[in-house]
Amino acid sequence: MTGPFVPGPALRIEGAPGGPLAGLTFAAKDLFDVAGHPTGGGNPDWARAHPIPTRHAWAVQRLLDAGATLIGKTITDEVSLGILGENPFDGTPLNPRAPQHVPGGSSSGSASAVAQGLCDAALGTDTGGSVRVPASFCGLHGIRPTHGRLDLGGMMTQAPSSDTTGWFARDAGTFARISAALLGEPIPSALATRLPMRLVVAVDAFGFADAETAAALQPMVRRLSALVPDVREDLLAPSGLSVWARAQRTLQSAEAWATFRGWLDRDNPRLAWSVARNLASADAISESDRQWAALMRAEARARVAWLLPPGTILCLPTTPFPAPRKGLPLATLDPLRGRITCLCAHGGLTGVPQVNLPGAEVDGRPVGLSILAARGRDAALVAVAMAMEASR
Amino acid sequence: MTGPFVPGPALRIEGAPGGPLAGLTFAAKDLFDVAGHPTGGGNPDWARAHPIPTRHAWAVQRLLDAGATLIGKTITDEVSLGILGENPFDGTPLNPRAPQHVPGGSSSGSASAVAQGLCDAALGTDTGGSVRVPASFCGLHGIRPTHGRLDLGGMMTQAPSSDTTGWFARDAGTFARISAALLGEPIPSALATRLPMRLVVAVDAFGFADAETAAALQPMVRRLSALVPDVREDLLAPSGLSVWARAQRTLQSAEAWATFRGWLDRDNPRLAWSVARNLASADAISESDRQWAALMRAEARARVAWLLPPGTILCLPTTPFPAPRKGLPLATLDPLRGRITCLCAHGGLTGVPQVNLPGAEVDGRPVGLSILAARGRDAALVAVAMAMEASR
Repeated sequence: MTGPFVPGPALRIEGAPGGPLAGLTFAAKDLFDVAGHPTGGGNPDWARAHPIPTRHAWAVQRLLDAGATLIGKTITDEVSLGILGENPFDGTPLNPRAPQHVPGGSSSGSASAVAQGLCDAALGTDTGGSVRVPASFCGLHGIRPTHGRLDLGGMMTQAPSSDTTGWFARDAGTFARISAALLGEPIPSALATRLPMRLVVAVDAFGFADAETAAALQPMVRRLSALVPDVREDLLAPSGLSVWARAQRTLQSAEAWATFRGWLDRDNPRLAWSVARNLASADAISESDRQWAALMRAEARARVAWLLPPGTILCLPTTPFPAPRKGLPLATLDPLRGRITCLCAHGGLTGVPQVNLPGAEVDGRPVGLSILAARGRDAALVAVAMAMEASR
Repeated sequence: MTGPFVPGPALRIEGAPGGPLAGLTFAAKDLFDVAGHPTGGGNPDWARAHPIPTRHAWAVQRLLDAGATLIGKTITDEVSLGILGENPFDGTPLNPRAPQHVPGGSSSGSASAVAQGLCDAALGTDTGGSVRVPASFCGLHGIRPTHGRLDLGGMMTQAPSSDTTGWFARDAGTFARISAALLGEPIPSALATRLPMRLVVAVDAFGFADAETAAALQPMVRRLSALVPDVREDLLAPSGLSVWARAQRTLQSAEAWATFRGWLDRDNPRLAWSVARNLASADAISESDRQWAALMRAEARARVAWLLPPGTILCLPTTPFPAPRKGLPLATLDPLRGRITCLCAHGGLTGVPQVNLPGAEVDGRPVGLSILAARGRDAALVAVAMAMEASR
């Protein structure tokens, strides 16, 4: 069982006195720069190849300025390429809600640290699901904000057209405080008048999830429906969740290859087979595949713009199942990864914000309900999270 | 600078008293089983996934029985997939003849240990050049014996239709003693009457080598020519050294994929990017490519059978250049690897024996001259090595 923090000298940076986050502690995924500490990126050859940062990442500085205290850097899947949280170099952080199961990744240590109560909140990154999946598996509030909204300075890049900075918290109140600081926007009070007017239940996504998971989420859907006057069913991805996933995987892989190929060529780093294999296949993506994926992204963006006018949110299962067991062979994991991508691809593809709401379990393991809104409506989703917690 | 031995408890197993190799010490590449010690295979996740052997590999036992003393296990390229000797896990063994340059691989530590004088001889393996290349780069005698001649029990497999057990020594006398023990055949005395009657100079291979290397080898070719009555020039590979290399790479990669895929799937091991990338591309080899390669192998075997009747040997540069510098980027190394393969592919493709003769230098770095003979004529090649040393 591995702790959620990366090895190294003790790290504690006090937040600014008297800020709105005074008294809160946080951790940062090892993809964020912390001045004077190596940015490990989950791979020993990454840290060695890059200088020790001399300034904090924007998100780290923002939380420190708001008064939160940084207490550690957390384990990540290698260079953020992973969705399960098993890192053969740094270890697999404990999922305290399901100790024999993975924590989810790539923001594995951040989710683990918050779920274990070692800090109040943690920064993660989400390109293809790396905050949403561990939030679902560990039973946490987690957000992937609107793409392009936050300054990503000092955060390791994977695929720029999909990369976001996200965060985790256990309770909705803490989640809202952190969100207000990072979004730079107050969270609307949870009065019914400020809540969305319409909820779309994404029936394709519920149908795609395991039946047990879809069933376990129904009480949450009912509670959510009670907060919103107009509830209807619709398809998130009429052309197919798997088609959206294919487009997102193509774009994300091609961009990740462009991001990492120089490092691979120069330093010939050690990588887990699953990571290296995927990078090698990214090198083989054809220009015509990439062009098709870009067209499908344009269609997906049009779809969510139509589906999510202001005042409308959409709900879907964050993951199609709870956390798989640790240490499964790739032949078993690869199809599971593929199914997770089908429920996450809309994030990177369209850039809309998404919040994971904890509160359901399958066989004792957490699984989350997600809500989406139009670009820029992040604060409205956080307000719904507070209302949902209040309605329990 | 890394020592040639794998980390671990001190290892010394005395040879049987009174044997023909009494007084000699040897090391074994970490692909050979030594009872009670893990077989590391150059990768930390390989050793962990495999039980500690309870008996010695055949070749280790054979040398111990003949009186030689085992003094260590040596670093190898990861699971023998490499030709340069740079291992990011265990380190790059020193090439004492060219300290800023690679030792060659995959039997890197074995060549390094012998070249440094830390032992008298060392066991290696040669599938695609893994004894011949480090013998050339480190200035050693080295043999790739006839494929299928030695018992490979307890030696890690890579590509069974090409795998061989080989060995290194500094001087021809020691090389002959070790060879006699492992081949189970006396080495003919170096009387001119027992030497080959005909020498074929492979003009395509000399033309393919760097001009400086081909020139540096000319004095050795002249000394060799002086030992053999009939000297003529011919092509080793009329269809192209690069065509033979393509066939060998296809067959070897497809077999290596079959060998390692179960481990990759089950354990998701850490691998250097260069190794993982090549395994990933091996997974993509088509059946029609594999079938073509098998046909080219049949043609290559017919060619060397015609070229090398009993009493004939062939000479060529072992490598097209001396050892490259350490730490070069892959974009620089990949073309060099490709050129090395062009001069080594005949070994795995045809199974004929090959001995590297030390004795030339380019810019102070060793480069070797190789001699080939028909299948089963290993001892005759060793006899030529003795005659060449005597003719200096």
